[in-house]
Amino acid sequence: MQDGRQIKVGVLGATGTVGQRFISLLAVHPWFVIDALGASSRSAGKPYAKAANWKQTTPIPASIRDLMVHECKPEYFLNCAVVFSGLDAEVAGDIEAAFRAAELAVFSNAKNFRRDPHIPLIVPFVNASHLSIIPQQQSLHSPPLKKGFIVTNANCSTTGCVIPLAALEKAFGPIESLLVTTMQAISGAGYPGVPSLDIMDNVVPYIGGEEEKMEWETLKILGGIADSDDGLKTFDMHFSPPPSPQQVREALAVYSPDAQALGCPSAPRRTIVVHEEPDRPQPRLDRYYQDGAGVSVGRVRQCQVLDIKFVVLANNVSIGAATSSIINAELAVLKGVVSG
Amino acid sequence: MQDGRQIKVGVLGATGTVGQRFISLLAVHPWFVIDALGASSRSAGKPYAKAANWKQTTPIPASIRDLMVHECKPEYFLNCAVVFSGLDAEVAGDIEAAFRAAELAVFSNAKNFRRDPHIPLIVPFVNASHLSIIPQQQSLHSPPLKKGFIVTNANCSTTGCVIPLAALEKAFGPIESLLVTTMQAISGAGYPGVPSLDIMDNVVPYIGGEEEKMEWETLKILGGIADSDDGLKTFDMHFSPPPSPQQVREALAVYSPDAQALGCPSAPRRTIVVHEEPDRPQPRLDRYYQDGAGVSVGRVRQCQVLDIKFVVLANNVSIGAATSSIINAELAVLKGVVSG
Amino acid sequence: MQDGRQIKVGVLGATGTVGQRFISLLAVHPWFVIDALGASSRSAGKPYAKAANWKQTTPIPASIRDLMVHECKPEYFLNCAVVFSGLDAEVAGDIEAAFRAAELAVFSNAKNFRRDPHIPLIVPFVNASHLSIIPQQQSLHSPPLKKGFIVTNANCSTTGCVIPLAALEKAFGPIESLLVTTMQAISGAGYPGVPSLDIMDNVVPYIGGEEEKMEWETLKILGGIADSDDGLKTFDMHFSPPPSPQQVREALAVYSPDAQALGCPSAPRRTIVVHEEPDRPQPRLDRYYQDGAGVSVGRVRQCQVLDIKFVVLANNVSIGAATSSIINAELAVLKGVVSG
Amino acid sequence: MQDGRQIKVGVLGATGTVGQRFISLLAVHPWFVIDALGASSRSAGKPYAKAANWKQTTPIPASIRDLMVHECKPEYFLNCAVVFSGLDAEVAGDIEAAFRAAELAVFSNAKNFRRDPHIPLIVPFVNASHLSIIPQQQSLHSPPLKKGFIVTNANCSTTGCVIPLAALEKAFGPIESLLVTTMQAISGAGYPGVPSLDIMDNVVPYIGGEEEKMEWETLKILGGIADSDDGLKTFDMHFSPPPSPQQVREALAVYSPDAQALGCPSAPRRTIVVHEEPDRPQPRLDRYYQDGAGVSVGRVRQCQVLDIKFVVLANNVSIGAATSSIINAELAVLKGVVSG
Repeated sequence: MQDGRQIKVGVLGATGTVGQRFISLLAVHPWFVIDALGASSRSAGKPYAKAANWKQTTPIPASIRDLMVHECKPEYFLNCAVVFSGLDAEVAGDIEAAFRAAELAVFSNAKNFRRDPHIPLIVPFVNASHLSIIPQQQSLHSPPLKKGFIVTNANCSTTGCVIPLAALEKAFGPIESLLVTTMQAISGAGYPGVPSLDIMDNVVPYIGGEEEKMEWETLKILGGIADSDDGLKTFDMHFSPPPSPQQVREALAVYSPDAQALGCPSAPRRTIVVHEEPDRPQPRLDRYYQDGAGVSVGRVRQCQVLDIKFVVLANNVSIGAATSSIINAELAVLKGVVSG
Repeated sequence: MQDGRQIKVGVLGATGTVGQRFISLLAVHPWFVIDALGASSRSAGKPYAKAANWKQTTPIPASIRDLMVHECKPEYFLNCAVVFSGLDAEVAGDIEAAFRAAELAVFSNAKNFRRDPHIPLIVPFVNASHLSIIPQQQSLHSPPLKKGFIVTNANCSTTGCVIPLAALEKAFGPIESLLVTTMQAISGAGYPGVPSLDIMDNVVPYIGGEEEKMEWETLKILGGIADSDDGLKTFDMHFSPPPSPQQVREALAVYSPDAQALGCPSAPRRTIVVHEEPDRPQPRLDRYYQDGAGVSVGRVRQCQVLDIKFVVLANNVSIGAATSSIINAELAVLKGVVSG
Repeated sequence: MQDGRQIKVGVLGATGTVGQRFISLLAVHPWFVIDALGASSRSAGKPYAKAANWKQTTPIPASIRDLMVHECKPEYFLNCAVVFSGLDAEVAGDIEAAFRAAELAVFSNAKNFRRDPHIPLIVPFVNASHLSIIPQQQSLHSPPLKKGFIVTNANCSTTGCVIPLAALEKAFGPIESLLVTTMQAISGAGYPGVPSLDIMDNVVPYIGGEEEKMEWETLKILGGIADSDDGLKTFDMHFSPPPSPQQVREALAVYSPDAQALGCPSAPRRTIVVHEEPDRPQPRLDRYYQDGAGVSVGRVRQCQVLDIKFVVLANNVSIGAATSSIINAELAVLKGVVSG
Repeated sequence: MQDGRQIKVGVLGATGTVGQRFISLLAVHPWFVIDALGASSRSAGKPYAKAANWKQTTPIPASIRDLMVHECKPEYFLNCAVVFSGLDAEVAGDIEAAFRAAELAVFSNAKNFRRDPHIPLIVPFVNASHLSIIPQQQSLHSPPLKKGFIVTNANCSTTGCVIPLAALEKAFGPIESLLVTTMQAISGAGYPGVPSLDIMDNVVPYIGGEEEKMEWETLKILGGIADSDDGLKTFDMHFSPPPSPQQVREALAVYSPDAQALGCPSAPRRTIVVHEEPDRPQPRLDRYYQDGAGVSVGRVRQCQVLDIKFVVLANNVSIGAATSSIINAELAVLKGVVSG
């Protein structure tokens, strides 16, 4: 941190796709230093380089190669101020709950607790204010928690979608109607994910549960803090009057949320890059811009059916997953929710 | 034909991508027999196998290998009852007009004459009735034509889109609003088309002119015959009351247009195949079904913004191009517009 | 058959990749008619269309959709003169042995029995003569078998390699030294095979066991019939004197083995197609030629280190797998080894 | 440089693929600073961002966006101590000769002068000693040159191949025989390069002139300095006795050429990375290692025909092109051939 202190963190599901991404990012992080790694019992007891089937395009960080992998039990993570979870949904529920109960602060990519009304579902450039629900989450626990909590981040497609929506709602008020068509890379499915025979020279028009997630997650993220048991407030979205394409471009380009203002080190310099060229954004050219931490928008133009249409590109393994969790944790540190 | 007669046809732009596809299809056609091939002066005078940089996955038909390629001048095509044009837009205008003036019946894939109000823009399973405007087209020529005319077919994306729309309008009346997102294969751009460096591991979110074409072509095709100079009748489309997804599925599945009823040999057995599996249609599995002459629809479901949403798959080099032209010509023969 | 008889066949592993390919091919076969399908107990008792996750580009043959899937037990296949096996190696050994013991003729794609010296490893255009070892195989069984036997076909890479080698050895005598580099499609690994994340935008330079298989399988196939227990005769391969590239081209082009002469209906018209263009063969253009049942050779030229070098293309799911087994069975019928 | 001086450089062919790569690399170079950009007359007079169709995955460096592009005439480059050429072969010959005649030091990627016996063909980790021929090159010019010369680098496939060969020759003496099979990415062909329709789902087994280039370039690079007119010394390559795979691995891993020792800032820390895992190197995982400036070797094993076989991965747009030229120029600076 600015005062030179380092914050010890742990990674759950450290050998999986999201876990590997956490490790790549955390190994060069200015504040966070990896103190403990957790994975399945099959990996436990091995040095990380032996346990992981490493798939990243950069080598395993030297400081991590020989770090011993533990089982995902709180006892191994007690020195960690923050625990990042890249666990599979099959196991994430029980483990993350146990970590919270052990007074650990968990930032999770898993979907298990996203719908819980007392657990914030945070997209870092959108609703950092939802961290304010954490005391309520802690108070409902028995016994009430002092430091333990869970924060989730959203599905990768929701994340890319909701950032420009937040910028537009901030500038023009609530959105009434929204139609989204996603084209998703194979990396969104984790590893092993889609068999190559199913996807080479092909497009699969369906991902189970994805449409539903994008609908309710967007509502929870863009909605207010829940004051009722279900945590979700349904709301109408409409533009009245509709902004022009040029107004939309400007509103997107100037959007500058909390994360930048507060000084999150992993926040991109520009949250949303607006392209003027008609054939941008393109994955090949734009996905790694700002290390994949921003969102690219292009082709903002009028729509003859609704008011405005445009194209959004977001890197689903960066801002769509581990990078989001890390910025969420940075926000929590800066807001004093986590004591580093 | 059923009476055993064969109809001599010519192919313009015979060495290009669409021309190659015409040749592959016509070589096994039950009625049409290729009598003359036209290409640029660079190819003229050569046997076809020397002139063409053949890119199809089946070899050059044996009957065509040694056929001499001519320049695209009517004098070489006077024996042809039908001339198919796969010419590039840069040259198609003048050449097709000259062929029409020479009393030849031209079925064109080029875009040059699509907007002409007296030239039908025909998608074979949708608006074959527009062939009835041909006499008016001939009468406006100076001197009036007896046999010469031009028929165009639509952009490949329009074609795939408009077939299910026609089925829905037939069942439920006019459509009020429509939003389309296309994902197009590289084959839609012809050869050489998109450089591989621009598209490998990439998606390009823009094709110049494509959105505009899909809008006005759809209106012309689904509209009535023009009685004014601009040839386009704007019309409202709305569903009132909206059909259920199941009603939509049934309306699509039973759609059986003129082409089948009249006995076009290239018409697929089923115009629209409706998939029940949530992950279909897929290009790899479905694009060659019925030799690519039909259209596949899947994921018919309710839309929270408009009424209904679904996925359409159409083969842009089959039903989207040469196959459409050939069925159009078959329709013209069956309706007596062309004398075989 | 020529006399109009049909031969009942079964398919083991019917729901897998190779099994699906068997079914696609057999559904249009002039002699063979599918009588029984076998798969795991999970699929048994279901109609085929429910049991199989169909991945072929043509639909499930209508005659097969409702055929009930059985467990892989001989009792369900007693009417079959031929049983094709697309079983996984984990289960193929026991099941194929049980079928042989039940006096069934098994033609297998699995690797389990390929090294057995009394079981022929047959590439259809190369060593059909090895079928002559079947009586010895039957006599070694206890009790001796009358009709039951196992015939295997080779690894898909071996098959594509060994056909031109056989043509060259026939023309020029034994080959002394041979270096092969293979580039293999993902389809060679079956389903689900390689995860897409491992292979998109990538080349993996290793397939476990593949190099060894190509070495010993080639020796067994091109070798003579075993007269000793190990069934393999090692032999030197050398060209003395070396042929010219033009002589090699001619020897490949004229190669016309048993399968064609005997009248196998699935044999291609030309075993080896020799391309003159320097940039052929190419998978996209040549893999489906002759329904993938032949082999394409190109770029025959002198080698400054060994004598001759060239490129071979073979379709690993056609001639490399199910098609080979079917031609092997056709050969066995024509040679009277199987009584139809 | 270490003394803080900066060296002004120019880029010819600045808008092309190799030119763009030069610009990306030079914009962050510790010594070299871009002073002038040259391109065709079509681009001349425009700011770079307008002239170039930028295709790199990082944006145009801010310092270059507004730099004016000139025609490729020496008068605009007189301040440059080094001129990098990414020109197409159609124009590189005349332009590079004119720059040399104007006393400029040219480091070229073009093939035009590679065969010239008085022009060194340098692969940076292999034959930097060939820079010693430059005085002879200058003396043959009329009038003799003081500062002007041309240095070329090799074809991208040759470069990747020759680095491990140099390591082996250094350890074990001359190589007698060598067989190479290359699998090349589309990026090797520049832009627009291969049409996507020719390469998607395909392999093209031929690149015109490539095999010949790999043969004679390898001989020139690994040979001694020419003392005769043709500049090439033919030499036998043989291993006697052959090294073991383990000896080969060690020889490759320890290879540490001039570039590192001299302190070239663009030289990778390790010239050759030797992988132990049988499925490495892989393009997806290894091509960006050390910014693509090193070479990866894997699968070192015995060969039953020759002595040793292995797999090499080199990044053809990094070490295979612009990176090589830049390291060559760094070497020339460090050796005093260029006065910074």
